[in-house]
Amino acid sequence: MDKTKTISAVATGEGGAIAVIRVSGKDSVSAVEAIFQSVNNKKLTDQKGFTVHYGYIRNADNQIVDDVLVTLFKSPNSYTGEDIVEISCHASPYIKNEILKLLGGNGVEAAAPGEFTLRAFLNGKLDLSQAEAVADIIASENKASHNIAVNQIRGGYSEEISRLRERLIELLSLLELELDFSEEDVEFADRGKLNALIVEIYDKISALRDSFSLGNILKNGIPIAIVGNPNAGKSTLLNSLLNEDKALVSDIPGTTRDVIEDSVNINGIKCRFIDTAGIRETKDVLENMGIERTYESISKASVILLVCETGDTIDDIRSVIESIGNREDQKLIVVVNKSDKKNRSVINRDKNSELDKYPVVEISAKYGDNIQELKNIIFETVGLNNISNDTVIVSNSRHYNSLSEAKASIERVVEGLKTNIPPDLLAQDIRACLHYLSEITGNITSEDVLQSIFSNFCIGK
Amino acid sequence: MDKTKTISAVATGEGGAIAVIRVSGKDSVSAVEAIFQSVNNKKLTDQKGFTVHYGYIRNADNQIVDDVLVTLFKSPNSYTGEDIVEISCHASPYIKNEILKLLGGNGVEAAAPGEFTLRAFLNGKLDLSQAEAVADIIASENKASHNIAVNQIRGGYSEEISRLRERLIELLSLLELELDFSEEDVEFADRGKLNALIVEIYDKISALRDSFSLGNILKNGIPIAIVGNPNAGKSTLLNSLLNEDKALVSDIPGTTRDVIEDSVNINGIKCRFIDTAGIRETKDVLENMGIERTYESISKASVILLVCETGDTIDDIRSVIESIGNREDQKLIVVVNKSDKKNRSVINRDKNSELDKYPVVEISAKYGDNIQELKNIIFETVGLNNISNDTVIVSNSRHYNSLSEAKASIERVVEGLKTNIPPDLLAQDIRACLHYLSEITGNITSEDVLQSIFSNFCIGK
Repeated sequence: MDKTKTISAVATGEGGAIAVIRVSGKDSVSAVEAIFQSVNNKKLTDQKGFTVHYGYIRNADNQIVDDVLVTLFKSPNSYTGEDIVEISCHASPYIKNEILKLLGGNGVEAAAPGEFTLRAFLNGKLDLSQAEAVADIIASENKASHNIAVNQIRGGYSEEISRLRERLIELLSLLELELDFSEEDVEFADRGKLNALIVEIYDKISALRDSFSLGNILKNGIPIAIVGNPNAGKSTLLNSLLNEDKALVSDIPGTTRDVIEDSVNINGIKCRFIDTAGIRETKDVLENMGIERTYESISKASVILLVCETGDTIDDIRSVIESIGNREDQKLIVVVNKSDKKNRSVINRDKNSELDKYPVVEISAKYGDNIQELKNIIFETVGLNNISNDTVIVSNSRHYNSLSEAKASIERVVEGLKTNIPPDLLAQDIRACLHYLSEITGNITSEDVLQSIFSNFCIGK
Repeated sequence: MDKTKTISAVATGEGGAIAVIRVSGKDSVSAVEAIFQSVNNKKLTDQKGFTVHYGYIRNADNQIVDDVLVTLFKSPNSYTGEDIVEISCHASPYIKNEILKLLGGNGVEAAAPGEFTLRAFLNGKLDLSQAEAVADIIASENKASHNIAVNQIRGGYSEEISRLRERLIELLSLLELELDFSEEDVEFADRGKLNALIVEIYDKISALRDSFSLGNILKNGIPIAIVGNPNAGKSTLLNSLLNEDKALVSDIPGTTRDVIEDSVNINGIKCRFIDTAGIRETKDVLENMGIERTYESISKASVILLVCETGDTIDDIRSVIESIGNREDQKLIVVVNKSDKKNRSVINRDKNSELDKYPVVEISAKYGDNIQELKNIIFETVGLNNISNDTVIVSNSRHYNSLSEAKASIERVVEGLKTNIPPDLLAQDIRACLHYLSEITGNITSEDVLQSIFSNFCIGK
C-alpha cells in the first residue's frame, strides 16, 4: 500500500477482442508516454483528461507491439483520484504481457487485487462501504444483488450510518452536559428527550442489523433444501423449478445419492435449490453418505421444502420431520406432491398438528401444476414481498458484525439508563457504538481490515 | 451483413473488473444518448470524436444500471469507419446484459462474430489479409505468431501482393500489345523482357507460397514427435524440454499409454512436443491402442526426435525407424540419450548408414545435458535461423491455397512461352493468376468467402 508507487494491471477479463490495461499514480502519464507514440506525434503529457489518443506501443527494439487507444484521466478527476491512463489494446495474452513488462521497465509496479479501489478509498473518492459495493457490483448476477450494491455505492447506506452517528454524537453531548454538572449533583433536565433519542437509535440499528438476513438472500440467493421420503418426487420438483433436467430422475427409490445444487433467477432473485438424498434406513454405504450430506445441507438452508405425497399421514413423514431440526431462522413449507393422483386423498391436516403452523401448497411436480404458487410462497416466507426501492438493507457480513456490536453497545446504554448507571459509563458505551458504526464506512480503519477487504477484489479493480 | 444497421457487442472477455461494450453504426451515438446521462448533462450528439464522458446508464424505470465511461469516435475516424461508441462499465454479467438489452430497445442489433472488422473491411479501412491478421493478433500467444500477425496487419504482406499484381498487369499489357499486332504476324519485340518479368513473378509467388511451412510453424507452433524404443527415456526428455513433470516417468517399459502433448515457448516460438508410447510388440490391448496413436501423431509432426540409447545399434532401433514413414517435409533428428552412462559405448554411426544424413545430438535427458543444443538444432532444422524481421511470410492457409493456384497459373504461362502457346491463352492464365492474388487482399471476394473468414472471429471484434 505504498501510495507513491504507480501501479498497473489488466482490468478486463480473459479472452475477448480487446483488453484494457489500467495505470494509476503520479508517473502514469510519463510511463505510458515512454512506450507510446501517438499517430499525430502529440505528447501525452500535454493532453487534457477525458481525451483519447490513437497510436502505437513500441518495445525496446522500436518494434510495434500493438496499435492502441490511450485514454487520460487527470487527478483528481479519476476513479482513484490519481492520474490514470487506460490502454485499450488487442486482447492477446502476448500483447497484454508485453505491455505490462514495458510499463514495468518504466517503474510501474503490478497492482495488488483491489488496489485501484483501495486508492480511491484512501484518496477519499469512496467510503469503505462504497468501496466494498464495487466488488459486489462486479459480482452481481441478477437484479436483486445488483440493486443492493448500486444502492450501497450510491451512498444511501452510508448516509443512513452517517445520520446514526450524528444522533449518537448528539446523545453523547446530552450526557456530557449532565457529566459536567455531575459534581453539583444536578440531573440532566430533559431525561425524556434522552430516552426518546436512545430508543430511536436502538430501533434503527436493530432494523439495519436484522435486514442482513434479507440482504444476504438478495446478495447470495435463497438456499432452499428439498427434503422428503424416497421417491416423494424431490428431483422431479427440482427439475420443475429449474425447468430443465439437471437432476437424475428415476422410479427407483434412492436414485439421488449426491446432494445436487442448482441456481435459477426467479423475479431477479437467485434461488439456490438443493436436492437431497431421500431419508430412509438403508444398508447401502454410498446412499448413507448421501443421507449424511442431506442433514448438512438442510442445516444450511434458509427455506425447507418438505415434500410429501397426497395421502401421506404425519407418521409417514415422521423421520423426515425429525431430520429437519429446529433452527429458528429456517422457514418450512409443506409441499404436497402428486396432486394429479386423484385416487388418493389429500393430506389430512387435522391429524398433522405439528405442521399446522406452516404454509401448505399442493402441487404436481410432474405436470408443473401450482409451481408458480410455490415460488410466490417461498418469496413471501423470506420477506421479499415487503421491500421498497429505497429500503436500506445490509448485505455485507462485515457490516453485520459491526452492527451487532453497535447494537450490543447501545443495548447496554438502554439498560444502564433504567438502572441509573453513572453517565460516564454510559458515555463509554455510546463511544463504543460510534466506533463500530465508523468501522462500516471506514472513518475508523486498521491496516488489517483494509487488507482483508481488498484482497478479495479482483486484480485490475 | 446489413451495413445500415447499428450493432453492439461486448468486446472484452469474461470476468475482470471492467467490460467494454462497443456500438457501431450511424445510430450509435443517438442510441447510447437515449440510455445515458452525462454527469454534466452534456449531450453526446454535440461532442467530438476521441472524447470520453462520465455518467450513468439508466433503465426504463429511470433506475441507475451503472456508472460508465462513454468514448466517442466519429466516422470516418474509427475502427469500422462508422460512428462508434464504446461504453466502459463494471464487468458484471447482469450489467453487461442489461446494457445490451437497453441498446436493443433502441434499435441496436447484436453483432455477429467479426462484424466490426468485416465493416472495417467493407468500408475500406483494412484489406482482407489485414482483417484476417486482426484475428491472428488476438489469438497470438508468443512473439513469433504475434510478429507475423503485426507484419500482416501493418500491410507489409499486402504491399508484396500488390507489387506482384502490378507486375502481372505489366506482363498482361506486354502480351496484349503482342495480341493487338497478332494479325500482322508481328511478334513482340522484347521477348527477353517478357521472360525476365515472368521468371521474377514466378520466383516471388513460389517463395511466398513456400514460406507457408515456416509461417504455419511461427503461427501454430512446431509439432515435434518424440519416438523411440520403450524405456529409451522419451518421457524424461519431454520433461527436460518442458522443465516440469507433466509426463509420467517410471522405469517400467510401457508407462506412457496415451499420447501426451504439451507446449512451451522457446525463444518466442511455440513448440508442441508430443510424447508417444514406446513402439514394441505387446499383447496389452491398452498399450496397443497407445501405439496406434503413436503412428498417428508421428504422421502429424514436422520434426521427429528419434530417441535411442548410447550403444544402440541400427538393429536395436529398426522397428522405430520403420514406424516413422517417409514424409518428405518431416525433419528427423537422432537423439542419443543416456550420455551419462559412461560404461556404454557411443552409438556407432558407421554402422548406421540409414541415419547418416540426419543430425545427431548426444544428451542426457535425466541430467539435462545438451538440451539447449537439441533445441537449437530443432530450430535450425525447420529453417527458423534464417528469418529477418522484414521477411514476408505467409501463415494463413487460405492465402496458401490462393498462392498455390496462382503458382499453378503462372507455371502454365512459363510452360506456354516455351511451347509457343498463342498469347491470348497466356493472357487467360495471367488473368487467373491475378484473380487468385486478388482473393488474398480481398480486391475480389465473394459473400461466401467473407462469411467463412469472419465467422471465425470472436464476437466484439
